[in-house]
Amino acid sequence: MRLAAYFFQDQAQVGCVTEDGQHVQPLDLPAPERERGALAVIERLSRGESPGPLGAPIPLAQVRLRAPIPHPRRNLFCVGKNYHAHAKEFARSGFDSSAKVGGDIPSVPIIFSKVPECVIAPGEAIVIPSAVSTAIDYEAELAVIIGQGGRGISRADAMRHVWGYTTLNDVTARDWQNRHLQWHMGKSFDTFCPMGPFAVSAQVCDGTRTRVRCWVNGEARQDAQTTDLIFDIPQLIETLSAGITLYPGDIIATGTPVGVGIGFTPPKYLTPGDTVRIEIEGIGVLENPVR
Amino acid sequence: MRLAAYFFQDQAQVGCVTEDGQHVQPLDLPAPERERGALAVIERLSRGESPGPLGAPIPLAQVRLRAPIPHPRRNLFCVGKNYHAHAKEFARSGFDSSAKVGGDIPSVPIIFSKVPECVIAPGEAIVIPSAVSTAIDYEAELAVIIGQGGRGISRADAMRHVWGYTTLNDVTARDWQNRHLQWHMGKSFDTFCPMGPFAVSAQVCDGTRTRVRCWVNGEARQDAQTTDLIFDIPQLIETLSAGITLYPGDIIATGTPVGVGIGFTPPKYLTPGDTVRIEIEGIGVLENPVR
Repeated sequence: MRLAAYFFQDQAQVGCVTEDGQHVQPLDLPAPERERGALAVIERLSRGESPGPLGAPIPLAQVRLRAPIPHPRRNLFCVGKNYHAHAKEFARSGFDSSAKVGGDIPSVPIIFSKVPECVIAPGEAIVIPSAVSTAIDYEAELAVIIGQGGRGISRADAMRHVWGYTTLNDVTARDWQNRHLQWHMGKSFDTFCPMGPFAVSAQVCDGTRTRVRCWVNGEARQDAQTTDLIFDIPQLIETLSAGITLYPGDIIATGTPVGVGIGFTPPKYLTPGDTVRIEIEGIGVLENPVR
Repeated sequence: MRLAAYFFQDQAQVGCVTEDGQHVQPLDLPAPERERGALAVIERLSRGESPGPLGAPIPLAQVRLRAPIPHPRRNLFCVGKNYHAHAKEFARSGFDSSAKVGGDIPSVPIIFSKVPECVIAPGEAIVIPSAVSTAIDYEAELAVIIGQGGRGISRADAMRHVWGYTTLNDVTARDWQNRHLQWHMGKSFDTFCPMGPFAVSAQVCDGTRTRVRCWVNGEARQDAQTTDLIFDIPQLIETLSAGITLYPGDIIATGTPVGVGIGFTPPKYLTPGDTVRIEIEGIGVLENPVR
């Protein structure tokens, strides 16, 4: 199942992308739930309800995609420094003071959050708040979407709690991330979370072994396999759910591979006019302009 | 205006506490908004709507208080190390590795978040997840509640964006806070955010100059004036809103004074059977058992 949230004739709808990848089949949901995108479907599925189709498939070319979960139920959980080569580039950059404490490779997952309101749609602009920061960086990430919630979920059970995946760009103001020690603000500026194009169930995409790639203006920057995660998806779910109850639709961004802007000397930060393109096999392409 | 969220005859209601402090006047709101407590009223007030009374005042003794905002619209913003004496005790404890980087007194606000679902009501139990952590600490805090939202709010304008205040206990698993470097998880365990008893408008309580006190089992632990904040409320709002749009009902916990459990040698962590009592002048008493 590949879920799309979109506007068609100015109406918010949720639908399943068809096999051919060219159409979307609208799902039969009450209007307030259609506003909530894939989150409404994932919540219903977690209760054993499966929304049926409504009307005929619509060509994807005729809809305006939203983020698959346009407004997450709470802040997104995000993992820091979770690929070996990225953890090393980050330490090398000297920019992250917490690296001086935690060392190159973290010994436990580092979890921070992004506010739900910074989520934007495929094609929507990442806005550089130039009066506030110009050290704006991209981070291509596979994001896990929780299906069945729970607490105290073991590694062994964890994958049964995964509904599926989406792609997100964990856009970051590096100077704020560094200066304020806790990363929450520098990760949460308005427009700092492009997401999409679809939310894809675990039957369609195996996030534990897929490829994450990122280009800026066509220049390849990131290319990694999720098998290279320092803390794999079951470990992340076990750690997060130890003390915190997880809910259907919760989003866990699993971290970014080597190749972010700050890893270059001098750093290659985003500037107005850039385009960031992220592709994760099995999910699709998430492309956003910068302005 | 002192807003209370409560159950009366098993119905969720929102009301204004009367002058005598003994009754609550229910407000006329649609049922789904009554579920949302003071948040629904604050959102309406921010649009210039003022809900009227419904029926007669009810004795407070006959209601069961909920947290004034039982489910915040997104994670709560929280400020770390924001009282001078507390910043020093925290550094002295050696427990917070980020202090080794940031120094005793932060030069800029340190902001992290707590999940909305860890909010609990006055009288509800803080549950120690003994298999996960027993290094559980209390932190008495004044919390600002945003009225008019906005972005790029200046210090000079900031107080016009404050609707009012509540009290919260920023309960913390110290070992998780330390080990995982980013504080999000150790601050967000289930039941880790007692809030209340009321949400009080800025006309009734001047949060910029009030007294915050905390007792554990009747033993005085914290006693400070909010005039001692390192970063005052206007500064916090200016910093937070620089890149992040604030919304009506957003909660900013302003940090805790000296006297937390980890400041003692050996640390005085919470254990089952304890009672934590927090009093902030103008808001009231927030008391929660520990189990």
